Amino acid sequence: MIHMKMIALWKLVLSLTLTGSIHCGKVLVFPHDGSHWVNMNILIQELHNRGHNITVIRASDSWYIKEQSPYYHSITIDFSLGGDEAFFATFVSRQLQIRREGSSLWTRFSLDMELKNRFSAVHRNISEMVIHIIEDPKLIGSIREAEYDVMLTDPVNGGGVVLAHYLRLPLICNARWTVHGEAHFAIAPSPLSYVPLPLSMLTDQMTFFQRVYNMLYYYLRLYLYKSIVGPHYSALCNRYFGPDVDYFELFQAADFWLMRVNFVFEFPRPTMPNVAYMGCFQCRPAKALPDDFEDFMKSSGEHGVVLVSLGTLVGQLPDTIADEMAAALSKLPQKVIWRYSGKKPSTLGNNTILRDWLPQNDLLGHPKTKVFVSHGGTNGILEAIYHGTPIVGLPVVFDQHDNLARMKYKGVAQVIDIATLNENEFHKALQEVINKPSYSLNMNRLSRLLRDTPVEPLDNAMFWIEFVMRHRGAPHLRTESYKMPWACRKRREKQD
Amino acid sequence: MIHMKMIALWKLVLSLTLTGSIHCGKVLVFPHDGSHWVNMNILIQELHNRGHNITVIRASDSWYIKEQSPYYHSITIDFSLGGDEAFFATFVSRQLQIRREGSSLWTRFSLDMELKNRFSAVHRNISEMVIHIIEDPKLIGSIREAEYDVMLTDPVNGGGVVLAHYLRLPLICNARWTVHGEAHFAIAPSPLSYVPLPLSMLTDQMTFFQRVYNMLYYYLRLYLYKSIVGPHYSALCNRYFGPDVDYFELFQAADFWLMRVNFVFEFPRPTMPNVAYMGCFQCRPAKALPDDFEDFMKSSGEHGVVLVSLGTLVGQLPDTIADEMAAALSKLPQKVIWRYSGKKPSTLGNNTILRDWLPQNDLLGHPKTKVFVSHGGTNGILEAIYHGTPIVGLPVVFDQHDNLARMKYKGVAQVIDIATLNENEFHKALQEVINKPSYSLNMNRLSRLLRDTPVEPLDNAMFWIEFVMRHRGAPHLRTESYKMPWACRKRREKQD
Repeated sequence: MIHMKMIALWKLVLSLTLTGSIHCGKVLVFPHDGSHWVNMNILIQELHNRGHNITVIRASDSWYIKEQSPYYHSITIDFSLGGDEAFFATFVSRQLQIRREGSSLWTRFSLDMELKNRFSAVHRNISEMVIHIIEDPKLIGSIREAEYDVMLTDPVNGGGVVLAHYLRLPLICNARWTVHGEAHFAIAPSPLSYVPLPLSMLTDQMTFFQRVYNMLYYYLRLYLYKSIVGPHYSALCNRYFGPDVDYFELFQAADFWLMRVNFVFEFPRPTMPNVAYMGCFQCRPAKALPDDFEDFMKSSGEHGVVLVSLGTLVGQLPDTIADEMAAALSKLPQKVIWRYSGKKPSTLGNNTILRDWLPQNDLLGHPKTKVFVSHGGTNGILEAIYHGTPIVGLPVVFDQHDNLARMKYKGVAQVIDIATLNENEFHKALQEVINKPSYSLNMNRLSRLLRDTPVEPLDNAMFWIEFVMRHRGAPHLRTESYKMPWACRKRREKQD
Repeated sequence: MIHMKMIALWKLVLSLTLTGSIHCGKVLVFPHDGSHWVNMNILIQELHNRGHNITVIRASDSWYIKEQSPYYHSITIDFSLGGDEAFFATFVSRQLQIRREGSSLWTRFSLDMELKNRFSAVHRNISEMVIHIIEDPKLIGSIREAEYDVMLTDPVNGGGVVLAHYLRLPLICNARWTVHGEAHFAIAPSPLSYVPLPLSMLTDQMTFFQRVYNMLYYYLRLYLYKSIVGPHYSALCNRYFGPDVDYFELFQAADFWLMRVNFVFEFPRPTMPNVAYMGCFQCRPAKALPDDFEDFMKSSGEHGVVLVSLGTLVGQLPDTIADEMAAALSKLPQKVIWRYSGKKPSTLGNNTILRDWLPQNDLLGHPKTKVFVSHGGTNGILEAIYHGTPIVGLPVVFDQHDNLARMKYKGVAQVIDIATLNENEFHKALQEVINKPSYSLNMNRLSRLLRDTPVEPLDNAMFWIEFVMRHRGAPHLRTESYKMPWACRKRREKQD
């Protein structure tokens, strides 16, 4: 206990002393809209608290990124990126419906293609927005004149990466994904023999055939990304930098990477010196709950509470799934708090309350919380690990299946296919995770590992952003490998 | 300035608060004698200061490692490792003489073979000492009963690695080298296309033919190590663990690596999550000099002082080399402090004083010091970078040529072949480094980068040693790749 208190004390001191330690820097941010913005906004708020000036580039129809903020100035580009919100809101429930009905391969493939076309359109629009910025002489002139110290971007789109190169600004990526996949794969050697491809549902211990699958899957994914997303940004590079600048090399030329994972969540793998792992940088000790929540938690007695939240994308579940879930939850001796905004399930039990919004972190950290029913978003998983709360996972889309497969592998989660979920199966999984001590013990072990760091992840992220500003880059940490001569040696030398 | 002071303040607070934060651990140390011990002893002293109990295993005829120490208990093994001191003292001067005389390839090869046989004997003796320990029931019983929390070893020999496996202790390597080469190569993927092999004198920017050379050199080195050194320890593994335990895999199974380099010195390269870079962990701000040294420094006026130290191995230079050096130094307007214990050179100038011993760190950090004439040991180079003092390098043996080639590449050193050194050449190099501002400017830039870390290297090393003790290992940071099934899948599974 003394140890934990001392660690907490020096982390506080570290945080306080770092606050005043850096000159006031000018940070240009090219974010990605949607849930990614939530992560970027945490960095922006902390940079603001440390006295830096932040300017955020946003489209006029931006979904999450507000024009006005106490934390940043914004440059609003008179450009429509097209509303993804409506598409994704329906996409998730359509996909669940298709999976539930066991629809034909063709139907599934069609929906996947629709998603891919949608992604392609998103990136085409972003690259057109970049053209809009660069070819507005007044706008680009004012950006140049502002003399920013660094570009901070989310490389899930390539706009900030290209713009940083155009403006010759040091580049920091706040990353888990890049347009061509998981960020690690763009920058560090990732031997496919023991580094499972993201979304592959594999671990770092693979059989021979799993390793072959991992390799084939890698090339498929590379092909898809390079054919669907890459061309938009490659055209952008060609337009402004000529044929000698390879778009994908711009990622490798980034000065620093702030990775939103850590090695409690990630399998051990090679990494590069210009990477800091800041997974759980948003995690915080639980604050006191609002009175109504606290009263509800207390009323649960010795059985405790089940917390259900399936993220922002699942606004409304198909009725049948919600009914099965509610029925299973109603059979538990626990009380249940469910983040849910759809039609009230007909089978809802007396032990369950529905809410549009939850203080999720504070609930996860509450001693009465026994299990977290989650869709498996990275942030939610890391928060559950932080608070030592085991998981029943109901993955819906994207990386959620893979994220939860890892948690299952580590013995801290049961995972159920939400599309085919039935009352009994869900009830059984809940009972197992609540009543079998190993889930809780394993999760507490992960929690201890996650919290035991020499520097808090958010402080570490701030240190490296300020490092790059102080030194105008971090060339001594960045590999030169991407400039390696091969067939095109002469071209590269010319460029350098 | 405010920034630097605040950083210094929080580093101090960090160090003080960490001191009291960990339970009293029991650390078993299997060190390597000679200059390597100097590094290990710094960790031991700091561990002692933080309240841990340290026990050091040493041979009865140990060269540097004393039986009595205020910082550790020792277990003295009644075993003679054989005196390397005498061999190495003459080896260096013999090698210089041979290089100076342009001796035949055969003579050079013979000396190299003598060195390799010597190395082979050193490792055979160490592995025999391990047998001596394990097969003394009383001794090994008392070691088991002591219930150590961790084994800390220098993997330049394999004794500690094998003993840790035998005792089933978590293993931490304090490393730059392993018995099979630079430690990185044992644990992280090191693409030979942009990771120059240590001793290769290459950088991370290689032409095609340099890359081919790098690859061939790698296989040659691997073959030499595996044929000269490896068999002794492999036999040891076979004796105690049977044919299923591969000696080289024991390195990959280490829980944590404390690397005595950093990326100001090292070229950026892939690394693994269970590595902390603690290069310059011995670096300290300069303390006040003894009066006689301070008076001498002051007397140098505006020209300043040249500091000459060729390390512990060069006790006595061949007369002709010392004479050429002294003559060149005598022509400088600077004053000169020379660590030198041989016969006084006939050409010694009035501006030069000779000393058996120097407060090297305090002299390097003195504002009057203009240049460091160094043999290129890693620690000396890192201290020169820390204090921003440019270098004239006179590499003698081992990694010194390669270390100094890196400094030359970074524009902070001139390098001269000490074997063929003549007065004019040495004088010209000294003048260039002293008078051309770029050397000093570049070195100050490296110094700023080196000092700008979120945690002091020694504090970071302590954090990770204590982390491994707290969690009885660091399995979530260690790759599973070395257990990967291939032809011998069944064997591995049996072992696990």
